[in-house]
Amino acid sequence: MHTHTHIVQYYETDRMNFVHHSNYIRWFEEGRVAYLEAAGAPYTDMEAAGLLCPVLEAHCRYRHPCTFGDTVEITTALSTFGRVRFTFSYTVHRQGDGLLLAEGHTEHCFIDANGRPLALARRDATLAARLTALSAADAAGTMP
Amino acid sequence: MHTHTHIVQYYETDRMNFVHHSNYIRWFEEGRVAYLEAAGAPYTDMEAAGLLCPVLEAHCRYRHPCTFGDTVEITTALSTFGRVRFTFSYTVHRQGDGLLLAEGHTEHCFIDANGRPLALARRDATLAARLTALSAADAAGTMP
Amino acid sequence: MHTHTHIVQYYETDRMNFVHHSNYIRWFEEGRVAYLEAAGAPYTDMEAAGLLCPVLEAHCRYRHPCTFGDTVEITTALSTFGRVRFTFSYTVHRQGDGLLLAEGHTEHCFIDANGRPLALARRDATLAARLTALSAADAAGTMP
Amino acid sequence: MHTHTHIVQYYETDRMNFVHHSNYIRWFEEGRVAYLEAAGAPYTDMEAAGLLCPVLEAHCRYRHPCTFGDTVEITTALSTFGRVRFTFSYTVHRQGDGLLLAEGHTEHCFIDANGRPLALARRDATLAARLTALSAADAAGTMP
Repeated sequence: MHTHTHIVQYYETDRMNFVHHSNYIRWFEEGRVAYLEAAGAPYTDMEAAGLLCPVLEAHCRYRHPCTFGDTVEITTALSTFGRVRFTFSYTVHRQGDGLLLAEGHTEHCFIDANGRPLALARRDATLAARLTALSAADAAGTMP
Repeated sequence: MHTHTHIVQYYETDRMNFVHHSNYIRWFEEGRVAYLEAAGAPYTDMEAAGLLCPVLEAHCRYRHPCTFGDTVEITTALSTFGRVRFTFSYTVHRQGDGLLLAEGHTEHCFIDANGRPLALARRDATLAARLTALSAADAAGTMP
Repeated sequence: MHTHTHIVQYYETDRMNFVHHSNYIRWFEEGRVAYLEAAGAPYTDMEAAGLLCPVLEAHCRYRHPCTFGDTVEITTALSTFGRVRFTFSYTVHRQGDGLLLAEGHTEHCFIDANGRPLALARRDATLAARLTALSAADAAGTMP
Repeated sequence: MHTHTHIVQYYETDRMNFVHHSNYIRWFEEGRVAYLEAAGAPYTDMEAAGLLCPVLEAHCRYRHPCTFGDTVEITTALSTFGRVRFTFSYTVHRQGDGLLLAEGHTEHCFIDANGRPLALARRDATLAARLTALSAADAAGTMP
């Protein structure tokens, strides 16, 4: 698990006064990018190696709104890592009082530069082992 | 059901070449705004009457990517309309070949200007009846 | 000159109640994309031919705010077209009452896929002549 | 002057591979919000006191592109502070090699909750004096 801090920006709010709900999907991306960076498997390295991981599914449940002036903490876990698909799960809490703002998940697969799905273990066994270990550790609630 | 046409913009793409997945959540909003407008219950009227309808949940399943140069058709249905909560469902197809790009739903409730949830039937029985009829028609796959 | 219609979206507003100022820069892009499409020189064709036209400068003067519920008309002109650089200018009016909301310009050049600036006339004399004619027509306030 | 650090996000890029130019306008906002926070005059306090400061003009000159994987430093100065209008200026550099990516400015005024322009000195003499001092210090290239 990894926690990433994000300062809510004015341009992220809408006229209901709160952060527009679409931005949480962007914050999930910030969270998983920071997770992979912290895990020593930065997404820029994957892309440089011709590995892309598009989003197959996104889900968010909104618990409480937040707005400009708030800082949020996005906690990301690699909740499942299968042969072809994997899932990140997220919680977003407000810094200070720890209020749960939202929770969700995204499902992904790996594709090559031509858009073909690939089994990571065949392409990069080391990275596959690393992500499998991270997923197991996240499931166990411990850091590897 | 209502179908809204959206021209994909350059600023909606990301460096994977395709529309960033967060924009589908925004397109869903475009779709339901157009739906309510077409149904004679524009969201601006609701807001003017002190009715807000925040998003409680959003879900999207991505089937095929699209990019700049594409035009998409967002079809929106009011799939459930309960006493307190209601759900819009969406499909996004590429114009021309009709390829299914994504499908999803959003769940909502009504709140007043102070953020308190409210049962629409008590506040505006006419609007509640109208939305109930729309939901029934959408479930039956016919237009009222 | 070409006028493009845009329905203001909820997600384009911020908590001051109005459209966030950064979106006008995006609307300018919508305007010039629609301009080039209408002129028979769509940007997708240029990109397919390896021609990119990055923004070198953007400027916007904000006259009046607009918000969700408004529709805007973005009028685009190719105000100058030089050997290496060219400028689009824009006005944004509110549909209905014609209120001037904003005006601005963007400056561009052409680069190839490797990021090197290029003189369009050497690469595609037909397109260069077409854009030169459009620019002259826009300067004269007539359509070619 | 104040320098704010921003990690470039994937969702900020477009299919030309680089950060979409509209995001620099958003980064300018991030920069001035951080500037005011650091100066002890946070924008949330101004809004709570009924003071809004809309953008009257925005300008950006783009020098070099940046992309996902980069971190940028936005340096903000309150370059002029007049009786009614004031201007922030910005530079954006890439962290690491210090490459200048962009520079620009935004012009603002203060308005009240009803949208009427106001002279800050009459409304809040302490804040006006504070901002005048900051502007003088920025002009002199020193911190107050």
